[in-house]
Order: sequence, then C-alpha cells, then structure tokens
Amino acid sequence: MTDSTREHYVSLDHQDPLRELRAHFALPDGVIYLDGNSLGARPRAAAARAAAVVQEEWGTGLIRSWNTAGWFELPRRLGNRLAPLIGAGTDEVVVTDTTSINLFKVLAAALRVQAARDPRRKVIVSEASNFPTDLYIAQGLADLLQQGYTVRLVDAPTEIDAAVREDTAVLMLTHVNYKTGEMLDMASYSELAHARGALAVWDLAHSAGAVPVALNAAGADYAVGCTYKYLNGGPGSPAFLWVAPALRDAFWQPLSGWWGHAAPFAMEPQYRPQNGIARYLCGTQPITSLAMVECGLDVFAHTDMQALRAKSLQLTDAFIALVEARCGHHPLALVTPREHARRGSQVSFTHPQGYAVMQALIERGVIGDYREPGIIRFGFTPLYTSFAEVWDAVEVLRDVLDSGSHEAARFQTRGAVT
Amino acid sequence: MTDSTREHYVSLDHQDPLRELRAHFALPDGVIYLDGNSLGARPRAAAARAAAVVQEEWGTGLIRSWNTAGWFELPRRLGNRLAPLIGAGTDEVVVTDTTSINLFKVLAAALRVQAARDPRRKVIVSEASNFPTDLYIAQGLADLLQQGYTVRLVDAPTEIDAAVREDTAVLMLTHVNYKTGEMLDMASYSELAHARGALAVWDLAHSAGAVPVALNAAGADYAVGCTYKYLNGGPGSPAFLWVAPALRDAFWQPLSGWWGHAAPFAMEPQYRPQNGIARYLCGTQPITSLAMVECGLDVFAHTDMQALRAKSLQLTDAFIALVEARCGHHPLALVTPREHARRGSQVSFTHPQGYAVMQALIERGVIGDYREPGIIRFGFTPLYTSFAEVWDAVEVLRDVLDSGSHEAARFQTRGAVT
Repeated sequence: MTDSTREHYVSLDHQDPLRELRAHFALPDGVIYLDGNSLGARPRAAAARAAAVVQEEWGTGLIRSWNTAGWFELPRRLGNRLAPLIGAGTDEVVVTDTTSINLFKVLAAALRVQAARDPRRKVIVSEASNFPTDLYIAQGLADLLQQGYTVRLVDAPTEIDAAVREDTAVLMLTHVNYKTGEMLDMASYSELAHARGALAVWDLAHSAGAVPVALNAAGADYAVGCTYKYLNGGPGSPAFLWVAPALRDAFWQPLSGWWGHAAPFAMEPQYRPQNGIARYLCGTQPITSLAMVECGLDVFAHTDMQALRAKSLQLTDAFIALVEARCGHHPLALVTPREHARRGSQVSFTHPQGYAVMQALIERGVIGDYREPGIIRFGFTPLYTSFAEVWDAVEVLRDVLDSGSHEAARFQTRGAVT
Repeated sequence: MTDSTREHYVSLDHQDPLRELRAHFALPDGVIYLDGNSLGARPRAAAARAAAVVQEEWGTGLIRSWNTAGWFELPRRLGNRLAPLIGAGTDEVVVTDTTSINLFKVLAAALRVQAARDPRRKVIVSEASNFPTDLYIAQGLADLLQQGYTVRLVDAPTEIDAAVREDTAVLMLTHVNYKTGEMLDMASYSELAHARGALAVWDLAHSAGAVPVALNAAGADYAVGCTYKYLNGGPGSPAFLWVAPALRDAFWQPLSGWWGHAAPFAMEPQYRPQNGIARYLCGTQPITSLAMVECGLDVFAHTDMQALRAKSLQLTDAFIALVEARCGHHPLALVTPREHARRGSQVSFTHPQGYAVMQALIERGVIGDYREPGIIRFGFTPLYTSFAEVWDAVEVLRDVLDSGSHEAARFQTRGAVT
C-alpha cells in the first residue's frame, strides 16, 4: 500500500490509538465533517444530559436545582475540568458568557492593572487578521474609555515586535488564526510583551482542545476561548476565561454582576468582588447550554492533548499532501504553515472561486467552510476525524474541481456563512 | 360557599377563563409552585424543543443549522415575538446575553447619548433596594469610566424626585421590586426623568409576562429584562433588551461584538454598527437555552396581558386576605402594597424567622423563596397557579406556624438560596 491509495489511509485508521473515540460522537451518515473548528460535533451523551436538565432539573427540581443540581457551581466546576487542557490550574478558569464578553472583561482588567503601574500605557496591540470580534471588542472598550486609549493593528506577526512599545498596555493575540490556521508561539510573544512592560492576552478559540496549550508555563496573563469548537460543547455553548494567578485578585472587572460578588445572596447594594476567579462571573448563566459543555469535556478524559496533537498533525499533513498531489493542477494555494510548530488543527487553501467550491463540497457532504477572501477552510478534529475521511474528502474536492461542478449557477449566490 | 372554605377557591378555578393554560406546563406532583418569579415552570413543549435542537439541529444539521435552522436570527425573531408583551414594536427587542450584561449595554449607550447632549450629566440615580446586580453593573460602569461618573442611591421611591437633578444622566429603576413586589408607575417616573433632562432605563425582570407593560406608551428610553421568570424560558435563558426607536441608532454600545456589526460575515477589522436593534447584539448565543424561550412565549399566544393581570390580582388579593385571616395571630407583616396599581405579581411578608419558615414550607411542598432581611416571598403566575393552590398554600403556612415546625433545628442553618 502506498500513500496514494485509500487502503493506506484505512490502515492508518486501524493503527490509530484514538480510533475508539469517534464512538462518543453522533455524526450523520453521508457527511465528512471538517468544520469542527467552527461547531464541534455532538457527543452522544449530550442528548441525555439536555433531557435531564430540562425534564428533571428544571421540570421537577424547579428552583431547588440551583442548589440540588449544582447549577450555581457549574461555571467554576466546568472551569476546573477544562483547566488541564489549557495548562491552567484549579480556580483559574470559569466557563461563562461569550468569548467576546469575556474578552471585554479581561481587557478592562488588564488596562486597569496597567493604569496603576504606568498610566501612559494606553494602547492595545493586535493583528488586523485577528478574529474581527476581538478587534471590535477592543475598539469598543477603547472608545468607551476615551482618554487616549486606542487599538494598534499590525498586518503580520513579523510586525508585532516593532508595535509593542512603551505606550503599549496589552498585546492581544489569537493563538491559532481562524483563517490561516497559523499558530503563534505563546511563550515568545508573552515574553516579548513582558519585556516591553505589556500584558499578554490570548484568545484560544481555535486552540482549546485542538493543540496543547500551556498558559501558566508560557507566561500568559489572561486568556479567553470557546467551548463550541474543538471542545464540542454545543451550539453557542458558554465560553471560558482564565487569569494568571498573580493577576487574579489584582483587579475585578467592570461587568461586575452579582455572580462575582463576595456574598451574592446577601443582596448588598455595593459591589465587593469575590476573591478568586469567580469575580470574573457576571449574571445568571444559560444552564441547559452550559451543562452540555461537560459532555464534550468528558471525552477528553479518555486521552490527552499530546496524543491528540500527534494525530492532528498526521491528519493535516496527510490532507495537505493529498490535495497537492491530487488537485495540484487546480489554482489552489496553501495558506496554512507547513511547519508543525506554526500550524493549528486546520488547513486553509485559497481558490479564486473559493465560495462556490465550498458550496459544491457541502452539497456532496464534505463540510468545511468559507472565509473571505477566497479561503476554503478545513478543520481536523482528531477525536472523531478518520484518515479515510481525509482521503475521501480530497477525492470529492478533486472531483468537484475536475468536473467544474462548482461553476454551476446555484453555487454562485452568497448567503449567510458562519 | 364563603371565601373561608376551600370550595370557594375550587369554584373560582372553575370560573377561571385561563384554567386551560396550566395544561401547557409540566409541574411536579406534590408541589405548589409559588416561585415562578424566580424560575418559571417548564412548558411541556420545551423538552421536545431541546431534543430537536440537540439531536437534529446540532447533531445532524451541524454547522449548516446556523442558516437552515435559523439560529442566527433567533435573538431578533424571539425579540419580535416578545415585543407585544412589553408594549414594544418590531425591531425594537432582542433576546440575548444576560440581564446584567444587557443593562451594561444600555447604560453605556445612555451615558454616551447624554455626554453628547450635556457632558455635565454624570450621575446614575437608582434605588438602594433595586436588585443588587443592577447597582453593581452601574457601579462597574461608573468605575470604568472614571471622569466623575457616579451612582446615587435613594432609600425609597419618594426620594427619587429630589435625587434626579441637573447632574443626572440616567434614572435607572426596576419596574417591580424583587423583594417587596412594589410596582412603580413607569409613565410618571419616565416623565420625571425627561423633565429633568435624564433618560429612563427600566429593568423588567419581575414585570415581563407578569404585569402589562407599555414601554413606548410610557415614554421609557431603554429596558432590559429576564426570560426565565414569568416568561418561563428555562434556567438562565437569555435576557432581553429594548431601546426606544428614537434612540436606537443614536449610539451603539461598547460590547460591540461581531453579531452587531453591519456586515458580520465580511470580517472587517473595524467595527461598524448595524442599524436597528441588532447593534445591541454581541457574540454567539447559547442556542439550546435560547431556543426554548420560544416555548414560553408560545403559551402567551393563548391569552393576553390584561386577562393575566386580572387573574394575577385575584390571586394575590386572595393570598393576602387568607394569610391575614388565617395566620393573623403570627408575627407576619405584609410588605407588598395593597393598592393594585402599586403591586406586581408577587406577595412578600416579613417574619422574624422568615428563613426557617420558608424552609419548612418548601419541605411541605409549598415552594416560595426567602430574601434578606426576613422576607418570605411568593410569586403568582396566572398561567399555571390555581385558586385552590392559594388556599392550600395558606393552610400549609398556617399549619407550619401553628405547629412551630419551622423551629426545628434542620431549618435554622442557611445554605445558598437563589
């Protein structure tokens, strides 16, 4: 068997030590799902968990479930379960609210810490290619604060060094770029930030559950991220937030709702932040969506991030090699770094008709997604993606391109794409 | 039959034009649920809706469901369905995030509008007895803005008149007080605010679905509220936010995430707010919890707020009269106004051992809740509460108090209460 036959990939599946994990997921027939980087697949256990929350905990337990079903503790309990996947410790993570809102909290806290250290530091440095909502949140915060706060965007990671200066309060980066799949060296950029007196804020939306992350070891200061992508928490499941222990009690945060109060049920008229990570909580959480996050985390208990990373790199290596070998006569250009240390768990190519190509793939059951400009994006989730699926997906891509079926009129009109 | 017999209340149930609505809810046996003001009961339809979201929309539809299942439109679609219950129009309401976070958005927007009109206005006036998270959020925002922004708290509604002055930017009030059940006259206080140059921000957490609300007619400027109390959306279901049409496009808000962008999928690096209420959206929503909000709203389609209000007042009148008639020899004091125009859909009494009394009631299946200091609180949801339950609940209360069973040691230790 050579690597130019399907049998080769089937044999890789037989050798795959993670092959049993796919059974934890309910994947529809006739679909090769390469969009777990946007919305992770459903753990089988999630259906029963949702039913238990709705029918028993809500329906029968009613208000009593805040205590008896542990609803009030969920953000912290899930945070502690998620922590090992991102190199964090106990009482350092909460699962709550959305990534955008959590980013606002940590940016506001970081700016406040800096205002006390050196009030001239008023710039948030980031990449123009960062996920837009991160930039919008930083802009919204700077615009709210006025007083000279601004956001400085660079066009490439190579420009970060020059952009982090004596006026910089925060270096805000996404660990794995959502479009290109490029991964930044968290330790190096955190060190760069610190050397210039800035704090390092990381977005782990495309990292958590996808690549090994070592927040404490890498010297990060704050991090936020998403549970509905590689962590398979369900559509729009609440996000997470991490603060380095040394900074955790340095300041609270302006979305200072009652869940972060030192005595939430004393109903005091003045805010007093709780010690510990709970001060980053705000208001009442969407319990049904939140509870299902645990079903995703449960699957990770059967493996570890090193094993997942090894398979992820095998999958993305195989996909890149097969696309280049079998579709190389088409105008596809690899966007994702070939170097392992700089690659997340996705592969992106540009194609002049990228949107139509992706629509044609989806119609054929190969689900990736499209991002402007011209980028077709494929996520590889080692928990449930097989090597045979990599082969099969590339064969469908080749057939679409060779047959020109993406040129059909029905693929040309753009609707909403998420 | 006199009103001092159970039969009288059973006959009221027979005459109740809303009696069929209870069948839409799954209520456990052996429970009289008088805490729908904290967490509404489960609509029967919610179980099937959650299962459909989890198994079909997430499990089978996967990423495609953002479009095919209408996930992306849910906050606006549910907002439009909720709007008639609060006297709002189309494209004026979104269901999203939490009440605390939505309050932060509208307060920030209101302060920004005022900064443009008259930059000396930097005070948010509210009541010290407002729900604490509202005060904490206002304090968090003022503290973030610095520049002289502050929160001024009054001890009683009678002091509001004197507190709203030429320095006041916003009058922030809760329509129905969570502890006392006192309802404020929205039109009068909104007019007072406007007469002094302030904007009126209303929290409808204990109003929406409980009492008729006429946001536009009452001249309110901004409102937020909760869907998991009288609207029966499920535990922690996302909150709502309303902005008066005249102010809607005046400013955006600082939690400016991608869902509020004019072109959310264009992935532009600069924020541009969408016109309309969508600019108050921020990030990706918890779809399973959000989708069930519709099951609660569906029940309201079978009635109207006037019919619900008539029954609500009958229920609370009956409860007050029965407690005073049958438990009057115990040290209970009515906290809730007797005057209909000043009463929401709950009744609160103080008792020196209020906490223990409520624990004893809950053990006997009469579920209300407790709030410091010494307040036992009973919510009446006309959609599913019967007159016979009012009688039965008072009989249990009388028996608890007469027998002194609340003095048992097991009711004295306070745990978390929500």
